[in-house]
Parts: sequence; structure tokens; C-alpha cells
Amino acid sequence: MKLNENVRKNVPLVHCITNYVTVNDVANALLACGGSPIMADDIAEVSEITSISNALVLNIGTLNQRTIASMKKAGKTANEKGIPVVLDPVGAGASSLRNETARQLVEEVRFTAIRGNLSEISFLAGLSVSTRGVDSSEADSGNDAAAVALSAARKYGCTVAVTGAEDVITDGERVARIRNGVPQMGKITGTGCMLSGVIGAYVGANGDAFAAVTAAVASMGIAGEISYEKYGQAGTGSLRVGIIDALSRIDDQAIEQRGKIVYEG
Amino acid sequence: MKLNENVRKNVPLVHCITNYVTVNDVANALLACGGSPIMADDIAEVSEITSISNALVLNIGTLNQRTIASMKKAGKTANEKGIPVVLDPVGAGASSLRNETARQLVEEVRFTAIRGNLSEISFLAGLSVSTRGVDSSEADSGNDAAAVALSAARKYGCTVAVTGAEDVITDGERVARIRNGVPQMGKITGTGCMLSGVIGAYVGANGDAFAAVTAAVASMGIAGEISYEKYGQAGTGSLRVGIIDALSRIDDQAIEQRGKIVYEG
Amino acid sequence: MKLNENVRKNVPLVHCITNYVTVNDVANALLACGGSPIMADDIAEVSEITSISNALVLNIGTLNQRTIASMKKAGKTANEKGIPVVLDPVGAGASSLRNETARQLVEEVRFTAIRGNLSEISFLAGLSVSTRGVDSSEADSGNDAAAVALSAARKYGCTVAVTGAEDVITDGERVARIRNGVPQMGKITGTGCMLSGVIGAYVGANGDAFAAVTAAVASMGIAGEISYEKYGQAGTGSLRVGIIDALSRIDDQAIEQRGKIVYEG
Repeated sequence: MKLNENVRKNVPLVHCITNYVTVNDVANALLACGGSPIMADDIAEVSEITSISNALVLNIGTLNQRTIASMKKAGKTANEKGIPVVLDPVGAGASSLRNETARQLVEEVRFTAIRGNLSEISFLAGLSVSTRGVDSSEADSGNDAAAVALSAARKYGCTVAVTGAEDVITDGERVARIRNGVPQMGKITGTGCMLSGVIGAYVGANGDAFAAVTAAVASMGIAGEISYEKYGQAGTGSLRVGIIDALSRIDDQAIEQRGKIVYEG
Repeated sequence: MKLNENVRKNVPLVHCITNYVTVNDVANALLACGGSPIMADDIAEVSEITSISNALVLNIGTLNQRTIASMKKAGKTANEKGIPVVLDPVGAGASSLRNETARQLVEEVRFTAIRGNLSEISFLAGLSVSTRGVDSSEADSGNDAAAVALSAARKYGCTVAVTGAEDVITDGERVARIRNGVPQMGKITGTGCMLSGVIGAYVGANGDAFAAVTAAVASMGIAGEISYEKYGQAGTGSLRVGIIDALSRIDDQAIEQRGKIVYEG
Repeated sequence: MKLNENVRKNVPLVHCITNYVTVNDVANALLACGGSPIMADDIAEVSEITSISNALVLNIGTLNQRTIASMKKAGKTANEKGIPVVLDPVGAGASSLRNETARQLVEEVRFTAIRGNLSEISFLAGLSVSTRGVDSSEADSGNDAAAVALSAARKYGCTVAVTGAEDVITDGERVARIRNGVPQMGKITGTGCMLSGVIGAYVGANGDAFAAVTAAVASMGIAGEISYEKYGQAGTGSLRVGIIDALSRIDDQAIEQRGKIVYEG
């Protein structure tokens, strides 16, 4: 399949309402994979910006009252216009505000794809969680990622990616497990946020969301591996630069050759 | 001329009210070229901060109601104190909020320099535009950059830079065309924002705005070329790092020797 | 002492309410030294987030009315729960808003550690200052760093670090002087902010705040030296990447061997 080629050919415009910690990396990751980012969060313009975009990404990493309202408005506009929407429920489970916001978003907006760690998706699936900050809690590792992903995917009628040492992607029927990536990616902020942005580009340029999300998740893991091979000894600053480098050079052939993807169901 | 030397010698303090996507790159680019950045956007302090600065840069990349008010207040203070002001109308043409804000800013504040892509400056010149997100629209490429720049420069009585494959800088009489830079710079977020910051440093340290903007634009293109020579094969993450590296090493001699600048008029 | 080992072993969760200019570098520096960052600034969630954290870092670099209120609330929660709090009074002395905010924070919150440049700490110590933007003013260099640090430490009953060419750390009795680092670190935005984040990790994982702050300050200077040895000729973009690289590899042995620390008092 030509999932990355479609991104590079169509250059999907991806509207992101995202956190200010990793927003620059998200923009550069989106450009690197072939998309075009636009960040806009004032409620007076989000509907217009979403309307000209090919995908919308909502990331609650540094949510506040002002941007929560903008996320809802942009999400509803995307639904009206048939534009795919991606949710990154950063830190869901960690505070009442994040829980309540995540709940409202999945109630008020139909998502095409949701990507989070095991704690975050466990929360959305309705399981009790012990999220520690924005990282997945070890206490939640008893939850089976595939069962959690399937439960959330069926509940919300969308493709769900639970990312971790092994990534699980499912649309409620098909399941893909991916074993790319290196643990050192956890020592860089924003690999999850970048991936959610990249997923926005892939679903914005491809019709099959399950296939698009799977390719996006694999591409990020492969980028981490390529960067680690080159920069693992240097340190995490170089590792971060190398991930963007690798994303800017990855194509469908690389995803096919290096992707450790197993399909089930 | 010693335009860069003046920046490095005077270390102009540049107050930026700018977007959160590229703000870190803007600060590092400003430091690299010899300036000193200060970012402050609360309306309670912007007048004081502008008053101690040598230049003010207003960038509407992630504008919101709160920061729009701060931009206007800072701009008026700068005008009262005779401090040069630079406008980067990011995404003008893409939403009513951006259009209205850009219009209000050029009405309420006298700018020393305005830098944008062809779509953005076409909008300010009063031409109809088809901006796609924050990138220049191909549909607008029929507009002649020099004619657009001249029109905007005369309308607002300031130096205008339309940047793209060929950059055009004009103060309404003199015209400079610059052919530095590489297309891959478009695959990194923030090269335009960084340049607007660097322009702030150059106009903050030099009296002739046309000469200052021309040198700043050339220096950014040259930095892109130097970085691409070194990092083009590595990818866009390294390319971004290399641009800051090159900016930190560029001097007037490099601008003179590598600058592909043609003057007209 | 195993100060860095304690950070890497305990992985302290550090809640940062910080500026949007350097927030990504702060997060990556925290991860690099062994901590875990969480950024959250909505007043509806800061108490909850602080409560699950091992340290809180308040940085007023791009303060606004909304986040000032959140900083106070988070600080009070931390005090109630016995969680260490670090203050980075960026630009104190440069505007009334920053002065008033810094004053209110030290009045309403008990800090474990305060880190700033000579101008900022002079302001907090009650001396008249001539801060120029967010950099230390040369006019303030007449103030003796050790006297200023001691005065502030005794006034606020906490550990104070005045960082500059020579860093001075004191808890009001013990004094440490550190001569690590390179001047070129001043050409990168955020080395101070990153250090304040790293201090958060060290005080979050170690009981003796004076020893923890001293090790954190030394580690940042050493990281700057290591990066400069490798990247000094390349430029400031690479220097910044190299600082994160070095932070991710530093251990207690490196701090002991390379630290130029002199204790007094």
C-alpha cells in the first residue's frame, strides 16, 4: 500500500490544537512525514481553520478552559464536514479536569482515531487506572493492551492505538501488533504527541483509518530505531533530532521492510 | 556595510509577542545572530517591556484575544517611543480572525518592516488571496511578488519583504531580489518566524531599515544553504539544527560573499 | 553522594508551571537527568497534579494573569503536602508585573530553592537592580553574588543559587562556589530554565536541598563544557543538542570528577 506516498503526494493540511510542550516537534514531525501543520486555538477561528484542513488533531497535554472550548468547537465542525479527527488524551486518568475533558470530547465528537498509552486508553475504555502523570502506570500494566484497545474501539466506533513496548492498533475487528521502536524513545518528550500528529497526516491522506494508523505507528517506531542506531551513544538530544531526520526520509518501502507488524483477527 | 557587526556589537533587545509553535527557534535564532530576545505577552507588562527594548516583533501565528490586545498595546508603545516594529502576519488570508487582526494592526500601528509569504503580503496589499493554511498558496503565485511588495510598502510606508523561492525586499522605492536559500527550508517549521525575529534584531541595531531587512533575509537564506550542504542528506531535524549553527557563525563578510542579491530601482 | 543516582532511581515526577519559550527544553532536560516532567497550568487541575508530584517548579518567564493564579495555588498545595518547590524568577526587576508576582510568590509560598541570575536574586534580596530584559545586567555586577545569595537565602529560609560565570549556592550557612560551564551557554535560550527544572528533579529525589541544588548546578555546567568540547566549532544549534546529550549521560562520578566546586562556611 502507498500510505506514506499518499501523504507526501496530497500534503494533507492538519489542524492541531495541541500542547505547548511538544508543539514544535509535532509541527516538524508532520512536515517530515509529508503533511502540513497549522496550529490555531482561538475559538473565533478554529471552525474556519478546521474547514480548510484535511484532518484535525486534539491533544489535551496542556489543556485549559479556553482551549477545551476550542477543541469541542473544532471537533464538531470536523464532524459536520466529514473531516477525520484524532484524539490524544494526554494524562487522562491523572486529574479530574483531564478525565472530564476526555469524557466530554468522546461524547461530543466522533473520532476517527484515538492514540494513547495503556493508562490513558484504559481510562477511556472505562477501566480503573493508576496513571502517574503523563506516563503509563506500571500498575496498569496488568491490563491487556489488546483487550483495552478493542474495548475502546468498539465503545467509540473508531480505530484505537495503544502505544508502548508493543503497540496494538484495532478498529474493533482487525488487530495489528507492532514491535518497532526502542525504549530510549521514552526519554524524549513528545514522541507520543508527534505520533498523534503523524496519524493526523496519514488519516487525512488515506481512506482506511486502520491501515493509516498502523502505518503511522510503525513509521514512528522505525524512525526511533534508525535514530537510535545512529545516535544511541550520543544521548537523548541527538536521538530527538534523529527521529525527525528519519521521519523525513521514511517511505512505504521502509515501512514494509522494517515494520514488525503482526495482524490478527 | 557592517549590518551584522552592528547587531553583534549592540546586542539589541528584541521584544517578541509571537506564536508558541516556533517561539524557541525564534529566541535561539535571535541569540545566534547577535541579538537578545525577550518574550512577554501579558497586557500588564508589554508596554514596560517594549519600552526597554530596541525592537518589537509581532507575529500572529497562534493569535488569541488576549495576545491580540497585548500586540496592539505594545505596538502603540513602540510607536510613541520611536522603537522599530516588525510584523509577521502568519496565515493572513486564512481566517477572518487573522484577516481582521492583521488589518487592525496595520491600521493602529506604524510598522518599520513587514515580512510574509506572497499570500500574506497579497492580503495586506488588498489583493484577493487563496491562502492555504500558513503556507503561500500556489493559486496566489500569479501575483508578481515585486508588484505586491511595492504596493504594500507604499500603502504602509515601510519596508516589506515577500519571502519565497526568490525574496523581494522594498521600501517602496529601492528593490532587492535575493536568490539564497534552499527549498528544503520549507520542510522545517519556523524559518519564516525565525527570520522575522532576526529582522527585529537587524532593524533594532541599524538605522536603514531597507538595508537591515535585506541583510537579515540574505543571512537566513545563506544559513539554509550552509546547513543543507552539511545536513541535506541527514534529514530535516539536522537541517533545523544546522540553520541555527550557521546563523551563529555568519558575519557581514559571509553575507557579502554568498549573498545573491540584485538591486533594482 | 549518590545525588544523581537517586534521581535516576526514583524518577521524581516534577510538575512545572513554566514559560512557553523553553518548556520543551525543560521537559527534555528533566528526562535526560532522570526525572519525569509534567506540565499543567489550568487552575482547575494544578492542585491535583502537584499532589501526585515529587517537586513543583514555578518559572515566571512568560507569566500571565491566568498562570500566576495557578502558580500560587500549586505552590500552596505543595506547601501543605510537604512537596519541595523551586522558583525561577525570570526577569524579576524588568517589569512591575514580574516584580509584583515574584514578591507575591515568595510571600505566599515557602520555597525549597530559588535559582536566578544576579539581577533577579538581587531584586529578591531587596537590592535595587538594573535588569535588562531577562539577562543579568552588567550594572548589577557590582553586587557580590555570595552576599546577595546569602541575603536572599536567609530572608526566605531556603537554598538560593545565583548562577553566572561563577555560580554561588547557599542555604544561608553553607556556601558552594562552582566554576563549571562555558560562556557560550548564554547564546542558547533556556539554560537557566532547564537548570531550574533539573533542580526540581534533584530536590524531588534527595533530602538535602543544598547538596541537591549544588549537584544540579554543577551537572548543568559540566554538560555545557562537554557539549562545547564536541560542538563549540559547529555553532549554537548543535551546542543546545549536545547539552541535552550530556545531561542524559552524566552520573555522580562525572559530577565528582569534573565538578569545580569549592565549599566555604
